[in-house]
Amino acid sequence: MSTTFSMTPIGFARTPFKDTSEISKGIGAKHTREGELEILPEMVAGLQDIEGFSHLYVLWVFDRVDGYELIGRPPTDDRPRGVFATRSPRRPNRLGLTVVRLMSRRGRQLLVRGVDMLDGTPILDIKPYLSSVPPAELKRGWIADAETRSGRGEDREWTDGD
Amino acid sequence: MSTTFSMTPIGFARTPFKDTSEISKGIGAKHTREGELEILPEMVAGLQDIEGFSHLYVLWVFDRVDGYELIGRPPTDDRPRGVFATRSPRRPNRLGLTVVRLMSRRGRQLLVRGVDMLDGTPILDIKPYLSSVPPAELKRGWIADAETRSGRGEDREWTDGD
Repeated sequence: MSTTFSMTPIGFARTPFKDTSEISKGIGAKHTREGELEILPEMVAGLQDIEGFSHLYVLWVFDRVDGYELIGRPPTDDRPRGVFATRSPRRPNRLGLTVVRLMSRRGRQLLVRGVDMLDGTPILDIKPYLSSVPPAELKRGWIADAETRSGRGEDREWTDGD
Repeated sequence: MSTTFSMTPIGFARTPFKDTSEISKGIGAKHTREGELEILPEMVAGLQDIEGFSHLYVLWVFDRVDGYELIGRPPTDDRPRGVFATRSPRRPNRLGLTVVRLMSRRGRQLLVRGVDMLDGTPILDIKPYLSSVPPAELKRGWIADAETRSGRGEDREWTDGD
């Protein structure tokens, strides 16, 4: 398959994180830090009506990662897992996905809570977050096993990066 | 900004939809059709452990769309909206995002429910779906207005494409 799709940033994330070591990972990681999604001037018209949404999907690129591994060892576990069953940055196409809470908008800057990407990260898309899967229907795969082995409980809040 | 990121498919979606007119859109659209995510042989190792998850994020490309508009008229509303406040296919980078339910795996094929993409759609990434935003914290922007004007009620199930 030689198909290739070229993506260019619609903007960049401004976050407190200069190094990945500063970003909490693993079981129970909470992402509550605020940051800004700074949208390029030529894209700003597309932000119309966004203020009405409380939460947004942000699609972005792990731009400082080289290469990928199909089997990796997540920080939340002591055994290797398939990359598509994890949120490892070392993944084909290096796509990141984060749900953030929209706090406010100032022109072409969206102030959001819940960032988990490095400062300067290229943003490819923003979509409104509309739905959720009922908790009773959700199975969390190897994560539950890893929690049991690590002695962590069930009653912590899940966030969208780990 | 001349940065460009090249993406190549990890696989392709096999769905019942040959034309976009067959895919339900708009307020209350339910996506319950089944399809397959067929992962390329060289990527199949990355599927390890995926069977344990009930729901997956699928990141894909609206590959049959040309161009984009920053302001568009969603099927769910009678007035124009900013593209980043909608799920319009005519968006910069043409990225699609769908939450599907994983029914079963057969080798490099994932049988899933809830597909809303055309047959043959290139898939860029798959991630486990882990979290959800508590319904009480969720605001759905212009969607609520559009519902009111169209006389639709509140008690329909939201799915992830519209």
